[in-house]
Amino acid sequence: MFKSIEWDGKYITVIDQRKLPFEEEYITLKRFEDYLFAIKDMVVRGAPLIGAVAGFAFLCGIKEGRNSVEVEEEIKNTRPTAVNLFHAVERMSNDYKKGKNIEKTAVSIMEEDIELCNRIGEYGAFLFDKPVSILTHCNTGRLATCGIGTALGVIYKLHEKGLIKHVWVDETRPRLQGARLTAWELNKYNIPFTVISDNMAGIVMSENKIDTVIIGADRIALNGDTANKIGSYMLSIVANYHSIPFYVAAPYTTFDNSVKNGKEIPIEKRNSREIRYANNCRIIPDYDVYNPAFDIVPNNLITSFITDKGIIKKPTI
Amino acid sequence: MFKSIEWDGKYITVIDQRKLPFEEEYITLKRFEDYLFAIKDMVVRGAPLIGAVAGFAFLCGIKEGRNSVEVEEEIKNTRPTAVNLFHAVERMSNDYKKGKNIEKTAVSIMEEDIELCNRIGEYGAFLFDKPVSILTHCNTGRLATCGIGTALGVIYKLHEKGLIKHVWVDETRPRLQGARLTAWELNKYNIPFTVISDNMAGIVMSENKIDTVIIGADRIALNGDTANKIGSYMLSIVANYHSIPFYVAAPYTTFDNSVKNGKEIPIEKRNSREIRYANNCRIIPDYDVYNPAFDIVPNNLITSFITDKGIIKKPTI
Repeated sequence: MFKSIEWDGKYITVIDQRKLPFEEEYITLKRFEDYLFAIKDMVVRGAPLIGAVAGFAFLCGIKEGRNSVEVEEEIKNTRPTAVNLFHAVERMSNDYKKGKNIEKTAVSIMEEDIELCNRIGEYGAFLFDKPVSILTHCNTGRLATCGIGTALGVIYKLHEKGLIKHVWVDETRPRLQGARLTAWELNKYNIPFTVISDNMAGIVMSENKIDTVIIGADRIALNGDTANKIGSYMLSIVANYHSIPFYVAAPYTTFDNSVKNGKEIPIEKRNSREIRYANNCRIIPDYDVYNPAFDIVPNNLITSFITDKGIIKKPTI
Repeated sequence: MFKSIEWDGKYITVIDQRKLPFEEEYITLKRFEDYLFAIKDMVVRGAPLIGAVAGFAFLCGIKEGRNSVEVEEEIKNTRPTAVNLFHAVERMSNDYKKGKNIEKTAVSIMEEDIELCNRIGEYGAFLFDKPVSILTHCNTGRLATCGIGTALGVIYKLHEKGLIKHVWVDETRPRLQGARLTAWELNKYNIPFTVISDNMAGIVMSENKIDTVIIGADRIALNGDTANKIGSYMLSIVANYHSIPFYVAAPYTTFDNSVKNGKEIPIEKRNSREIRYANNCRIIPDYDVYNPAFDIVPNNLITSFITDKGIIKKPTI
């Protein structure tokens, strides 16, 4: 199976996720600027993968002889919502200050994530004892992490056990991570799936075709409010309306103890171009658009959290 | 202002809505097949406009010497959800059987719709006495009717009175009628608007930027259940969650007395290509997709109906 990130002892190589599913192109990140661009422009995306890439970005910046404070600042300025990036950079920075081998730290962040994914997948698979149809949003799979994924990792573990009936994939406008990336992964796994536009989840639920919803997370506040890809909020309201369980799958690295509730999580506003285009194809002229990349699922609409520590009903410190 | 349909005494000329907003191209429909294609392929769309075009389609079929029963059947087979099409064809067919001048009937259907739109707009504008921000879905304006529109007609009448603060436009995947058509119309009217992808309505509501939602309708059952463009159902649930009023604007021709509730309304499933492409641009390979063109808003999520007969809280026969 493909790897979203690979370390050869000198450089990391990643899949250029902007080109999927039509081209499977790998890019080796060599300079510090390459890392910043890869995160900002979403060559790599997915909160846990961004965290791992941020670790190697720090390593690269230091190797280039840059000031560690500036390196830390520049990486933190790439994307504001996913907390994994902040956790990774701070861990690198702390180890650097302590004079530790930060190459080892960066590799650890990556390798630990593989293990976190496996645990999330296994805990999640315990939730179901008969075949289920699952709706998922955005991409939370191998392309979003260093391992098998979070929400999609649960689906892979369920599939191993013969417990996946069908996967419904929200296309996830504007960047279409569901249609392009999740569908591409499920296709590689030979798991039966159907792509819908984001506004179709309601009718599919009303037709009793969805047993449960599982999404990932970019940052989880102390009270359980969860920032995730734009559209997650509407999905949680509509799942709740249909009494369909709504799970969030994420490693401990996505929980942010410094943030009390969802209101304190900064929401990244991305380029207008993303709405005006679909897959590099212009849809509309330069009309005014609004492009928040994430929204907040309130804790009361989340059935439980599937984490590497087990299933959590309600998070506390 | 442009006209979505014009009758020159021999042919009708329509805007090719597939090419908007980049090209404003007009097509004259000459043969019966042209009419069928125009409706099926969405050269023209919008329940009231489809009704008017269906009237002229019947006229053209008869002029070509075709069997009236077959003509009726073929037109009815183009698109199953919008009831205006059925009403128009049946009215034409009845007048034809009675030996009436059916050219006059077709022209009447068109001209009456202009008047219906004006009345809907005026009644709708009575609902608000201070400037409002309105979210709308799909296109329900001049391009969807023969007049100023239904939901968008209300917005135009409010704008005349200085009562529009802002319009939020759902892009409306897969055919993007909001981003392409509604935005194009609002731009011509110089009304301030912002396009969002369909999954963003929730966050915009949570930011208190939307005072009310107004949508159109393709068919309204006796109990008030309303078939409208896919995504309307999710929108109604999410508006309800935020306690935001949710209005349906439609002429009497959209009410279907033969249908008791939403479950009896047939939902058109359209071509997979619409999901796999955006504006003729390929997004994904031939993955399995699902493409219902409409969904049903249950009556209990509708605040009231804005019709040519006034504001209706709950429809009855």
